[in-house]
Amino acid sequence: MLETSPTIENLGIYTNEKKAKEWKVQSSKTAKNCKNYIRGIVDNLNLEPNPEKNVIALSLGDPTIYGNLNPSKETIEATIRTLEEGSCNGYAPCVGYEKARQAVATYLSHDGAEFDSKDIILCSGCSSSLDLCISAIADGSKNHNILMPKPGFPIYRTLAESIGVGVKTYNLLPEKKWQVDLLHLESQIDDNTAIIILNNPSNPCGSVYDDNHLRAILSIARRYQIPVIADEVYEQIVFPDKKFVSTAALESGVPILICGGLAKRFLIPGWRIGWIAVHDPINAFDDIRNALCSLSQKIIGSNTLIQGAIPDILLKTPQSFHDDMINTLCENAKVAYEAIDKVPGLVPYMPDGAMYMMVKVDLEKFPHFETGLQFIMRLMEEESVFCLPGDVIYSIVLFQCFELPGFMRIVITLPGDIMKEACDRIVNFCNKYYT
Amino acid sequence: MLETSPTIENLGIYTNEKKAKEWKVQSSKTAKNCKNYIRGIVDNLNLEPNPEKNVIALSLGDPTIYGNLNPSKETIEATIRTLEEGSCNGYAPCVGYEKARQAVATYLSHDGAEFDSKDIILCSGCSSSLDLCISAIADGSKNHNILMPKPGFPIYRTLAESIGVGVKTYNLLPEKKWQVDLLHLESQIDDNTAIIILNNPSNPCGSVYDDNHLRAILSIARRYQIPVIADEVYEQIVFPDKKFVSTAALESGVPILICGGLAKRFLIPGWRIGWIAVHDPINAFDDIRNALCSLSQKIIGSNTLIQGAIPDILLKTPQSFHDDMINTLCENAKVAYEAIDKVPGLVPYMPDGAMYMMVKVDLEKFPHFETGLQFIMRLMEEESVFCLPGDVIYSIVLFQCFELPGFMRIVITLPGDIMKEACDRIVNFCNKYYT
Repeated sequence: MLETSPTIENLGIYTNEKKAKEWKVQSSKTAKNCKNYIRGIVDNLNLEPNPEKNVIALSLGDPTIYGNLNPSKETIEATIRTLEEGSCNGYAPCVGYEKARQAVATYLSHDGAEFDSKDIILCSGCSSSLDLCISAIADGSKNHNILMPKPGFPIYRTLAESIGVGVKTYNLLPEKKWQVDLLHLESQIDDNTAIIILNNPSNPCGSVYDDNHLRAILSIARRYQIPVIADEVYEQIVFPDKKFVSTAALESGVPILICGGLAKRFLIPGWRIGWIAVHDPINAFDDIRNALCSLSQKIIGSNTLIQGAIPDILLKTPQSFHDDMINTLCENAKVAYEAIDKVPGLVPYMPDGAMYMMVKVDLEKFPHFETGLQFIMRLMEEESVFCLPGDVIYSIVLFQCFELPGFMRIVITLPGDIMKEACDRIVNFCNKYYT
Repeated sequence: MLETSPTIENLGIYTNEKKAKEWKVQSSKTAKNCKNYIRGIVDNLNLEPNPEKNVIALSLGDPTIYGNLNPSKETIEATIRTLEEGSCNGYAPCVGYEKARQAVATYLSHDGAEFDSKDIILCSGCSSSLDLCISAIADGSKNHNILMPKPGFPIYRTLAESIGVGVKTYNLLPEKKWQVDLLHLESQIDDNTAIIILNNPSNPCGSVYDDNHLRAILSIARRYQIPVIADEVYEQIVFPDKKFVSTAALESGVPILICGGLAKRFLIPGWRIGWIAVHDPINAFDDIRNALCSLSQKIIGSNTLIQGAIPDILLKTPQSFHDDMINTLCENAKVAYEAIDKVPGLVPYMPDGAMYMMVKVDLEKFPHFETGLQFIMRLMEEESVFCLPGDVIYSIVLFQCFELPGFMRIVITLPGDIMKEACDRIVNFCNKYYT
């Protein structure tokens, strides 16, 4: 008989009296602090579309929903070839295959920005990149805080707060093409500020910063010696007369972790391929490079199949593919701007890039609605604009989500005719309720 | 002029005197605590193979390296079809597509285990599943600890320690087919123990527990009301006369988070598809279900392309595919066991499943070597067994890695002739140094 053989007690059938004893497992502080602010609002709306009108999803940053924007044929072919070759099924290094890292480095090295494969860490989507970067630098146990833009993408807040790191915001200025309010940014910095998060081109604003403005922001970071996380996941998605400037292309002397990925420009957000590109002209990030490698071990990297295809996806997808997408965005932006600009009570802000347009809703002109949420809900109920197809896709996302009450964000990735229809409905709706 | 336009100061060129000021960014406590114990040892070995012998990688849990074990044709075809259909490129819900979750639920529901799609959360590989589970329950701020097996896979320790959670171990008994030492397990429980981690079939032991032993372990969990994380990533990988029993198939009355994935049984570890299956017969996990959903938002789920293929991968891959792999493992285990069993100073432990065999090295019989590491290094230098091809692939992994000095783990996924050759070399080496 085994020394530790099961006794009757050990084997004991699960009895009713034990069942009666309450057993509830409590979740950790980390989990409790991990909030999705958009979902928190949207899930409580109980939205019902107008059954007589088809729903139009002006959806949250997923350009693939309507089928008008698809990955390049080079992307599909490279992935099929990788599948058929069968050499990318095993574990890759946690930071990614050398070939894939090299391809990302080459892809990002332009206009003065220079990267080597060792500067690149592949992650499971850009959210994972941001997660690693924030976790590597910011420390809840030291009362660290991060600075994020307002309005800004709420994932920064979710990621920071879940690890006990505080969040402060700096204002963007709608009347100045959503440039950073530099004085406000500077005023928000305190002794515990560990990171400045910069998002360019911007979600939700669609703004694109020029080199002067980027230099001005970075010079503040440099003066206070605060490292920067630059969310550049919308890199190169700028309208024809605009230019994307990476923070890595400026000789700022600031250590920067640049986050990006295939999601937006290559139209495969679900494939979860993100990267971190370490720009560290002054060798301030030696410890952080190690930290990022360590943290990448927690989930052992991103999908190897797509990693095998990355060189071709990045380097063979033709410029015409990118031009086509930009044209769609640009056309939609014009359509939406022109339509909404004529609506009393609404003020559209013309974007220069990314996939969004911000619209100011002057609620005083719509006295039927006490809050922006009521406005949005009624728009859905009457015009079926802003729908929730499935579990995760929100639509016009709005108001408090981006920490800027009184604005709503409109996605500009839809097919042109649907975009037009959505705008018509918004116009109708506003004309009806404008006072 | 803009109110906040850049001043000369703001724009200031990065000057030399500023460069002179030291700026080093420190990594967070989380990053510092995130250690890979295997890498820590292996990276410092400076191993050089014997140039006259080809290197044999008895590698760490990656069955794909030698090309003898490949994903099923159903897996490849389903993925190509998903690619070509183009409907799985956008964001999925963070917990996964409903269809994929349903397929996993169906796949795992057998022999009395029952799951519904709402019980399944898809993750970016099984490591990510474990990360979410540990993070959801264990709380560094409450001085929580987790119990893990010794010997055991070091990722549990890495994940727990990185979030400030303590790790205690319970012994497995080599002489009893690596069963859990139940008395020791019970003695290790304290008021701060938040989780018992159970790994069956086991890495590194290759042990497969029967229902009685599992019940005995679970009854301890129930008595102390400690939830269980069951790492069942090697589910169904058991030798012909053995049976895999899931913890979910026993009426234990214990809330269990079962972690698994496609990595091992479907031979695509790099594709990073893992899952959590919530087994909660007493509704103790209501809060934990929410916590897992919240935490899944941090990296927004796993690759949608593979998710689209999951139903076919899981449900159409034929039994003959699985049988073939089991045969390879079983044959290799026999070859290795017979060869090593004849070597004085070595004691092989015949596995019942998974992909590994443990071998005890009686160092007193090998007085040339003061430590197990020296033994392993010399084996590599002379016989080219235990190589490091590339960045991440370790080989025989051993000794302290699994917290059990005096043992080494041998991988049994190689082609038969290479397995034989590796064993011959080990035999030669040991005969040479045995005293």
